Amino acid sequence: MKSHTRHLTLHVRERMDFVNITPQVEEEVAKSGVREGLCLVNAMHITASVFINDDEPGLHEDYKRWLEWLAPYDPSPERYHHNRTGEDNGDAHHKRQVMGREVVVAVTKGKLDFGPWEQIFYGEFDGRRDKRVLLKIIGE
Amino acid sequence: MKSHTRHLTLHVRERMDFVNITPQVEEEVAKSGVREGLCLVNAMHITASVFINDDEPGLHEDYKRWLEWLAPYDPSPERYHHNRTGEDNGDAHHKRQVMGREVVVAVTKGKLDFGPWEQIFYGEFDGRRDKRVLLKIIGE
Amino acid sequence: MKSHTRHLTLHVRERMDFVNITPQVEEEVAKSGVREGLCLVNAMHITASVFINDDEPGLHEDYKRWLEWLAPYDPSPERYHHNRTGEDNGDAHHKRQVMGREVVVAVTKGKLDFGPWEQIFYGEFDGRRDKRVLLKIIGE
Repeated sequence: MKSHTRHLTLHVRERMDFVNITPQVEEEVAKSGVREGLCLVNAMHITASVFINDDEPGLHEDYKRWLEWLAPYDPSPERYHHNRTGEDNGDAHHKRQVMGREVVVAVTKGKLDFGPWEQIFYGEFDGRRDKRVLLKIIGE
Repeated sequence: MKSHTRHLTLHVRERMDFVNITPQVEEEVAKSGVREGLCLVNAMHITASVFINDDEPGLHEDYKRWLEWLAPYDPSPERYHHNRTGEDNGDAHHKRQVMGREVVVAVTKGKLDFGPWEQIFYGEFDGRRDKRVLLKIIGE
Repeated sequence: MKSHTRHLTLHVRERMDFVNITPQVEEEVAKSGVREGLCLVNAMHITASVFINDDEPGLHEDYKRWLEWLAPYDPSPERYHHNRTGEDNGDAHHKRQVMGREVVVAVTKGKLDFGPWEQIFYGEFDGRRDKRVLLKIIGE
């Protein structure tokens, strides 16, 4: 069995934004030499997500509005008790649960085994600082 | 290490519906010859989900009403900017995020290592056309 | 390829609560002898979750209030048709979808490859009885 590990560092300038990381994942799959296996991609921070969806700016705007409805940004300690710790990112911990921590993608014949529109995104909900994404590829 | 790949094609007649695909997954696990390993099942389309829950029609009705509350179908370009691309399925991209893209199931002694009520469903949110589900089983 | 399987039993006294199971998962990773691989942790019940987030009591209170807004507990058969089966846990099946069934964590150099705040939680939404969590570790 082969295994390949890579930690990416991302720095998103906005509080909330989505970054297409598919090219970096494809590059690491190629480097891994794995032809048949699984590729895990996960956020290493708990106010961020990795998810698969469409690379369409209108949809990303929709997601942002929708997540803001589901879990509004509110630095006060009333809405989110988490903010009583001195943090202001209670909302980000909720948005991350909706969008998910990780994706697992099949590797087939040396490539990500994707449908026509699948793209991998890093979802940032408490940006403006360095954060890490983990790639782990195992197989043969 | 053994690996086994299968792409299923599904065609759901309704816009939104859930299909129990557990028998097909069990069949592929048996074919794979894997006794100990992991089984990934994922939607290959970004307006569909694969998830594990109960095979109970009342619950499925509940999920449909709830998802419609969380992300109502609305073909207009006002609610979902995604629909400005000419699509009418902005809602489906949101519903899929709530229900998830994929499940990873343990294979133990040659079978899906399931609790008493776990069943695997394909969740369709923009149906009436062919869509694919990927099964990847790795292990020994 | 090595594989290691463990079924944990949990009994949560409240209807809804979160239990940090990171120490148990770390122990099983050590027992597995796997240095490089993947670790799956999933709820075996469909009214429970396994998820990764912060071990901060204020945040857990926030999650409980938020999940109650998203899918309120209501034993009547009106809100949840699922409760027409004699169950009273329709809400729990919804809360579990928001928080997720499983996590997949990379194992690197014999340890969970975690960011600074990542902790694994069992999320119970229909407690007061024994439930199981599955750990499956594969790799080399």
